[in-house]
Amino acid sequence: MGFPKPSNEIDLIEKYFAPLASSSDSSLGLLDDAALIKVPKKHELVVTKDVLVEEIHFLANDPPKSLAWKALAVNLSDLASMGAKPAYYTLGFAIPNHIKPDWIELFVKGLNEIQNKFEILLIGGDTIVTNGPITISVTAFGQIPESMAMKRSGASAGETIYMSGCIGGGYLGLRHLQENLFGLNNKFSDFCVERYQRPFPRVALGMALRDFATSATDISDGLVADLANICRTSSVSATIYADDVPLPNGVKQLIQNGCVNLNDLFSGGDDYELLFTAPASYDSRIKSLESKLDVKISSIGKIGSGPANLTFFGKGGKILDFDSMGYSHF
Amino acid sequence: MGFPKPSNEIDLIEKYFAPLASSSDSSLGLLDDAALIKVPKKHELVVTKDVLVEEIHFLANDPPKSLAWKALAVNLSDLASMGAKPAYYTLGFAIPNHIKPDWIELFVKGLNEIQNKFEILLIGGDTIVTNGPITISVTAFGQIPESMAMKRSGASAGETIYMSGCIGGGYLGLRHLQENLFGLNNKFSDFCVERYQRPFPRVALGMALRDFATSATDISDGLVADLANICRTSSVSATIYADDVPLPNGVKQLIQNGCVNLNDLFSGGDDYELLFTAPASYDSRIKSLESKLDVKISSIGKIGSGPANLTFFGKGGKILDFDSMGYSHF
Repeated sequence: MGFPKPSNEIDLIEKYFAPLASSSDSSLGLLDDAALIKVPKKHELVVTKDVLVEEIHFLANDPPKSLAWKALAVNLSDLASMGAKPAYYTLGFAIPNHIKPDWIELFVKGLNEIQNKFEILLIGGDTIVTNGPITISVTAFGQIPESMAMKRSGASAGETIYMSGCIGGGYLGLRHLQENLFGLNNKFSDFCVERYQRPFPRVALGMALRDFATSATDISDGLVADLANICRTSSVSATIYADDVPLPNGVKQLIQNGCVNLNDLFSGGDDYELLFTAPASYDSRIKSLESKLDVKISSIGKIGSGPANLTFFGKGGKILDFDSMGYSHF
Repeated sequence: MGFPKPSNEIDLIEKYFAPLASSSDSSLGLLDDAALIKVPKKHELVVTKDVLVEEIHFLANDPPKSLAWKALAVNLSDLASMGAKPAYYTLGFAIPNHIKPDWIELFVKGLNEIQNKFEILLIGGDTIVTNGPITISVTAFGQIPESMAMKRSGASAGETIYMSGCIGGGYLGLRHLQENLFGLNNKFSDFCVERYQRPFPRVALGMALRDFATSATDISDGLVADLANICRTSSVSATIYADDVPLPNGVKQLIQNGCVNLNDLFSGGDDYELLFTAPASYDSRIKSLESKLDVKISSIGKIGSGPANLTFFGKGGKILDFDSMGYSHF
């Protein structure tokens, strides 16, 4: 869509990317300067953008298929946190010259896999050659009925704080890939690497929650930072019972060994679970979603009145000191 | 919107980027995981994305204010080529560590300038630190009444080919910055550098043309490549009278000196004028837009029947050989 193109860009688009757009009217077959989106009546469009840079947001030797999955998944997670149904995406893709066609082929397979899983379509983009690292800029589009989007700012005193799944796996997966944290491969390291490389956006849960959750975000920057964002935008305080925060099975031994501590797990990013608040009266309705959507949902704390503040209680009511977690923005 | 953030990202957003979104409901104050777009009744949303990489699409010492202008302008040009009214944009901004706050301040001033000129608003984005070159990924959104978007594929035999403004200035501006093509600064080099660094998207013209133009694109990759795209997608041929193609005042001397040739000017990119086709019956209506919108509009050739092909006629009916222009895709 616009710039002096590398001589092979048209070939790249036709060979690899056009099939990803084939069944979408919006893409105009990737043949035009722009794409066209029709929004259903009484709906709004939710738009999110995340940029991934090699060696900053992913490792240079991450498999291209899972990298493609992750580039889309982190955006779908943002749509999920608003309660939107994913629909389309555009791809800005800066590729260094050393990247070979078989890498791109695998990357496109990864895009295809997540497209099919979440029924979304490529509608446009810009593929360019860069003299720097691989840089992937995805903009994702979701649909939501008017006024139904969940925001970070709606939490009120007295409400319960919930989260899906568990946290810490993404952080442990990255550390394992960087320093072989667990020694030889085993089921637990596979689980954590999968959490890091192929996060699963909680799209169905987000859509189910939008009827009654008062605030929501995804846990991409870590539980502490993302909960701090809810507190800050809602002008409320939050109390978390650390024992109630679900961690991956198998992490206890690592904590006992001193390989990892709660600070790491509570502030590490890359889990892409949903964090949300709701009045206690919705508790049974929320619990019923667990079996319906095959996702664990835990109540981990309570919202209190403002000013914005976080308190973590550990065993025996001891207040945990997470000062080093970087939530000094209050 | 999602990744482990550099510690200063929240500060950056609050200090520099939040004011760019201040009067937009869609942005949610840049405080949420995603933005919300309402599309007016009986309208569609036009979406485009262009990625700019330092030293590939712009020069490292290009002024940050004009770089910001250009990053948005090239996207608005895509919206213009579809006939859309610009509305919003998201910004993916990968910033190397060596970039200083005063550079970012000037960059934001440039965004503010073009936002005000074209009445568009920032609604979201992702600001990250990169270990590579400055990389700017803008996604721009425009509104258009249903079924009114101009496409590349609508040209038919017998129609006239028009273009706005002149071509070659962007190419000459870049060459001047790279090799001091014109020696000391003068009005002509200033004009060309302005064309390169601060292209003016033909938004008003695009909106005026959508009622009757049969095909349109912007001239971003050069007249030859962009006309070839219209021919290819419309399955038509095109005949261009080279003498009718408007070049910047002052270029004749450069051609006589052998500094530049028609091949360079016809295939150089970065002009961001509109190229479009219309039945001859609309000629007077099109000409009337010149004074109304203060833009030169020239008829430069004719569409013929397919297969897709381009022929350029020079002085005395001589066929110009632009084989080296890279339109070998036919």
